[in-house]
Amino acid sequence: MKIKVINPNTTLSMTRSIEHAARRFVGLDTQVWAVSPQLGPASIESFYDEYLSIPGVLEEIRRGDEEQCDAYVIACFGDPGLQAARELTAHPVVGIAEAACFVASTLAKRFSVVTVLHRSRAFIEETVVGYVPREKVVSVRTTGWPVLAFERDPEAGLAAIAEESRHAVNRDHAEAILLGCAGFVDFADELAEELQVPVLDGVAAATKYAELLVTMGQRTSKVGTYASPERKQFTGLLAPFGTA
Amino acid sequence: MKIKVINPNTTLSMTRSIEHAARRFVGLDTQVWAVSPQLGPASIESFYDEYLSIPGVLEEIRRGDEEQCDAYVIACFGDPGLQAARELTAHPVVGIAEAACFVASTLAKRFSVVTVLHRSRAFIEETVVGYVPREKVVSVRTTGWPVLAFERDPEAGLAAIAEESRHAVNRDHAEAILLGCAGFVDFADELAEELQVPVLDGVAAATKYAELLVTMGQRTSKVGTYASPERKQFTGLLAPFGTA
Amino acid sequence: MKIKVINPNTTLSMTRSIEHAARRFVGLDTQVWAVSPQLGPASIESFYDEYLSIPGVLEEIRRGDEEQCDAYVIACFGDPGLQAARELTAHPVVGIAEAACFVASTLAKRFSVVTVLHRSRAFIEETVVGYVPREKVVSVRTTGWPVLAFERDPEAGLAAIAEESRHAVNRDHAEAILLGCAGFVDFADELAEELQVPVLDGVAAATKYAELLVTMGQRTSKVGTYASPERKQFTGLLAPFGTA
Amino acid sequence: MKIKVINPNTTLSMTRSIEHAARRFVGLDTQVWAVSPQLGPASIESFYDEYLSIPGVLEEIRRGDEEQCDAYVIACFGDPGLQAARELTAHPVVGIAEAACFVASTLAKRFSVVTVLHRSRAFIEETVVGYVPREKVVSVRTTGWPVLAFERDPEAGLAAIAEESRHAVNRDHAEAILLGCAGFVDFADELAEELQVPVLDGVAAATKYAELLVTMGQRTSKVGTYASPERKQFTGLLAPFGTA
Amino acid sequence: MKIKVINPNTTLSMTRSIEHAARRFVGLDTQVWAVSPQLGPASIESFYDEYLSIPGVLEEIRRGDEEQCDAYVIACFGDPGLQAARELTAHPVVGIAEAACFVASTLAKRFSVVTVLHRSRAFIEETVVGYVPREKVVSVRTTGWPVLAFERDPEAGLAAIAEESRHAVNRDHAEAILLGCAGFVDFADELAEELQVPVLDGVAAATKYAELLVTMGQRTSKVGTYASPERKQFTGLLAPFGTA
Amino acid sequence: MKIKVINPNTTLSMTRSIEHAARRFVGLDTQVWAVSPQLGPASIESFYDEYLSIPGVLEEIRRGDEEQCDAYVIACFGDPGLQAARELTAHPVVGIAEAACFVASTLAKRFSVVTVLHRSRAFIEETVVGYVPREKVVSVRTTGWPVLAFERDPEAGLAAIAEESRHAVNRDHAEAILLGCAGFVDFADELAEELQVPVLDGVAAATKYAELLVTMGQRTSKVGTYASPERKQFTGLLAPFGTA
Repeated sequence: MKIKVINPNTTLSMTRSIEHAARRFVGLDTQVWAVSPQLGPASIESFYDEYLSIPGVLEEIRRGDEEQCDAYVIACFGDPGLQAARELTAHPVVGIAEAACFVASTLAKRFSVVTVLHRSRAFIEETVVGYVPREKVVSVRTTGWPVLAFERDPEAGLAAIAEESRHAVNRDHAEAILLGCAGFVDFADELAEELQVPVLDGVAAATKYAELLVTMGQRTSKVGTYASPERKQFTGLLAPFGTA
Repeated sequence: MKIKVINPNTTLSMTRSIEHAARRFVGLDTQVWAVSPQLGPASIESFYDEYLSIPGVLEEIRRGDEEQCDAYVIACFGDPGLQAARELTAHPVVGIAEAACFVASTLAKRFSVVTVLHRSRAFIEETVVGYVPREKVVSVRTTGWPVLAFERDPEAGLAAIAEESRHAVNRDHAEAILLGCAGFVDFADELAEELQVPVLDGVAAATKYAELLVTMGQRTSKVGTYASPERKQFTGLLAPFGTA
Repeated sequence: MKIKVINPNTTLSMTRSIEHAARRFVGLDTQVWAVSPQLGPASIESFYDEYLSIPGVLEEIRRGDEEQCDAYVIACFGDPGLQAARELTAHPVVGIAEAACFVASTLAKRFSVVTVLHRSRAFIEETVVGYVPREKVVSVRTTGWPVLAFERDPEAGLAAIAEESRHAVNRDHAEAILLGCAGFVDFADELAEELQVPVLDGVAAATKYAELLVTMGQRTSKVGTYASPERKQFTGLLAPFGTA
Repeated sequence: MKIKVINPNTTLSMTRSIEHAARRFVGLDTQVWAVSPQLGPASIESFYDEYLSIPGVLEEIRRGDEEQCDAYVIACFGDPGLQAARELTAHPVVGIAEAACFVASTLAKRFSVVTVLHRSRAFIEETVVGYVPREKVVSVRTTGWPVLAFERDPEAGLAAIAEESRHAVNRDHAEAILLGCAGFVDFADELAEELQVPVLDGVAAATKYAELLVTMGQRTSKVGTYASPERKQFTGLLAPFGTA
Repeated sequence: MKIKVINPNTTLSMTRSIEHAARRFVGLDTQVWAVSPQLGPASIESFYDEYLSIPGVLEEIRRGDEEQCDAYVIACFGDPGLQAARELTAHPVVGIAEAACFVASTLAKRFSVVTVLHRSRAFIEETVVGYVPREKVVSVRTTGWPVLAFERDPEAGLAAIAEESRHAVNRDHAEAILLGCAGFVDFADELAEELQVPVLDGVAAATKYAELLVTMGQRTSKVGTYASPERKQFTGLLAPFGTA
Repeated sequence: MKIKVINPNTTLSMTRSIEHAARRFVGLDTQVWAVSPQLGPASIESFYDEYLSIPGVLEEIRRGDEEQCDAYVIACFGDPGLQAARELTAHPVVGIAEAACFVASTLAKRFSVVTVLHRSRAFIEETVVGYVPREKVVSVRTTGWPVLAFERDPEAGLAAIAEESRHAVNRDHAEAILLGCAGFVDFADELAEELQVPVLDGVAAATKYAELLVTMGQRTSKVGTYASPERKQFTGLLAPFGTA
């Protein structure tokens, strides 16, 4: 089985960490690799970045179907382009926020997300309440750090995440923590050890989730919302995305 | 005052109809014109089309700021890229679904949306309940027609919309109808006459709404969610979107 | 076009400030004036005051239709009698809480309301979540000051509002502030300047909103909820309200 | 114990039926009587009627406190003025929609309301979801009959209610029926017999509920929302409602 | 009339206090007594305890029907087995959390629950929002004390409850307090006196509520959810629960 | 890895089908077997059956921990005892309704559940909206057949399920079907083939889900809600469940 993990940003050092995390728990027969698109932003911290990462994600999905991939993971906590990807291919596509929410839901009654810049709070909240009932998510806490700062100073980054996570457990009564950025994959074990609650890295969760769907022979429903996109022309720089 | 109306698809005949509708009610001092992006899909009927229309929308916003525009309207009922546009500029940006929801809310207790393909039902529902409380929207009804078919056979198109609108009023107890596609702008008056309920064309509503915001001197909040995008590099075809 | 702004309380100094705010942004052809009813409470601070202000509001609506008014604004943040007013006339009626919610929704992802007495918190919360999805409204904060105290000591009043508004931005992550009382109209600009977020005075917003609806030729739906009241007799002091 | 039942409309034949229903189950020591206000509408079928019935309701509350009443019932299914009444007196005040919702909730998992004119559907729905979680109420069904028509032709009225009630049970899966008008008090037993599900007349329920609260020595909370109205002047016809 | 109050745990001293509270307000003709099941946990503090208390509750219901009981109260704030009890008998069954929620709703706009161990917070929240709209319940506060500790040191227990109740009123803006454990029945009066807000003991409320339902001749709906359990065999220790 | 699948009812033929379904997709190193408790009902069709199946489920969990099981599946669509099981063991416990909801959520925008008796409609609805946002679940449809009838006449049973599933797709716009009973495990493939939408058997899904959690080294959070039950005595038939 071939699972392609798409890091929607173009920072390759982050793609490598993501690949490492994605491979961690899969079976021997499961081939997993991570890619960055050939177009798009260096990191994703705003709706602007988010939407502009989607063409690259979709190009990787289309190329993936040519490469006979069996499933896809979108490895950014906003799950950019997830619904369009499900239209484009019938192979399962899993977002890391989505998988983290579902896995956390089976381990804890209530959970919090700890993430990057303050500006992302409302967006992340909106994302997760699209997957699980509102009352499951007791808080979204932000460190105020930009995405790539965690690469530059992982130690201080971990400390910042740990502090917000402790507040989530002690003040908001969270019973598990979701790491709200694909750049946090290396922190999960250490944090779980310290906090003594489940700490979910969505990359590992989503990759296993994708493997599960393939093993079960599941494919995306093509009746209704996720039917293949209508055939039509695209113009300009995006002409290659046309299907007419 | 200058208001730029962005038709996120590249079908210029539709852009002309939109411009006509957008100009209908504005003041003498308000300069309104409609454009299509130079890149993107011929029509928007899926998440795939929706997301791939956003780069073009954002390019028009950025160019608009250079052109000293005072406000923007995004003229597709899914309001593609609305939140990213609000990050990119401090001038007001209004979506046509959003404006239609707000205007309908002041005229009727309950309303329905009548739109194009069946596949859009869930997406349109999701869009409108982001603007108004769920109970306001009694149904989203679809004609099953693709967007551009309404251009090709407007008479039959109007009949199809009228039929679903009557069901909305009689079966779902709608008290107003929202036209769920920017391609329906020419149908509003005739339909309102026939149904004897308010029928909202979002293009006219959103353009007036944008004019109202400019007159009041309002600008988008730059504290939190809609702060300017972080400065960073973009790669490949999207390099021009970079801000580093 | 004639827009009548109804201050539901009988404090004429407040009616004058409201008129001033209402006129601020309207077009040259738009005639705007504010009135107080001839019956009702000196200020509105409880459900008791609220309900007892409604007969006066409705009398002004009925008289307004005789005066050939084109639209109405109800200028108290609880929007007293709004739905009955929509039954009584087919001309648009806009509430200031309603208009403030809709305008704020296009400028900010999340907002707070700052208002008067602590007792109004739950009522104001209930009012605004009738217009927009619950998650838009991050808090309702109260100064503890009665309505008319702001007239008596505007400087200290502004300071009290500013303090709660700062808490709303810093602690509740509000990205815009709604002034939750028609008595606050004079504070909007100064507060916006200080807080650097949009500060919405509902009076100006609702008057412009009413103007927009008239310009678009919109009228209230008379199918269903807002049909004209059934004809019938009224008894006692309220006999003049009868329609039989 | 003295319980005053206030029929908010001025149709005395209806007040007599209400009194009969209200007395049906109370204890020997409980004195129950029903009144109509001296001002207000002959029946309540719109927001207009509803709001204009409230001054009369409040006058009866105030007079009731002078008469040493121990509790009040507001006997119209929209519960007009309920929250203002709770401010005005510390003695318990119960609405018939409210009591019917609470009693039905202990007898059935899901219920429907059957009521009068079609225009009331949304209003009644809004009223009941203020008392119980939305999912309890599977439908609000309307007969299209005005309130007083049920007095004029009770047999045909009962048939109309029975038909909608059967639809509620068979199509909407209701497990109990709430009679959505105080004019239906005489129909409960016959309908329950026919439908073989609980059929709730809110008048009897609310009167017993009021008796229960008095027996338990409960009084309305005066901290926050339901504190006594602030003292102030009222003007014009409503001057007697002033408290300054 | 005979009302059987079932304390789902087996601690008889608590059963005696519950009986005392349950009898407090009922009529002379109402016979009330409290029992503990012959099987089950000494106290209820987890889902484990909760579910394992249900067989004993159901046995007492079945025996109660043989004893010609007219109604039942389940006297633990999680209302264990309430829905199964409603299937088993047609006589009314009332839970103490349910009755407390309904009574509090008529006395206060917003309320809080104060309860035992921290682990119960989410469970109690889930229980009460099954009865009333989410916005009624401003907080669930926990003392951290186990159930039986309140029996051992009632004075310190009352102090712990009083402290959390004060926080509920002052910080969360609660206007009434629900005592979230049947072991708190003795504290209601003293606490109400101190806090000057309604303090609801669910045991007294539910018993009166059950009396009300019997007086009104109400019985549980047997159409749909609460129909009698299907007849079938049970195995092992639970064979006596079989109905085949 | 050892995964124990608990069929909460005592019908062994059904346990065998469940075991077959549970084994279908797991890895070679995963040992899966299904058991029925030694106490409890022959099938689960009411709250009565549901609650009385829980002691048997919990006994199997406790015994499972002695048998060094790594995870558990509760194989009845109401997920009986799931939260108590999570208290009792730190090893992952997955319910089949829960797993079906999460898997369906990644494959389809909207889904329906098709299940057994009409009485279960509200209960099943309540169960699934505890896992996913309400708008995901467009309907719960019932065949009216009891659980064991599907074993006696599987062909007619499949036809009944297929009919309701078609209605779910065509009338309710479902894009996937969840089989709402563990007795339906044999129907999934045939139904998916016929309907051309994903058809989810929760048993296979939950078993794979449990395997995923074990592979990832996840354990239930013991902070808060799912902490181990407090130690205490149990009385009578349930004395063996005591922990004191």
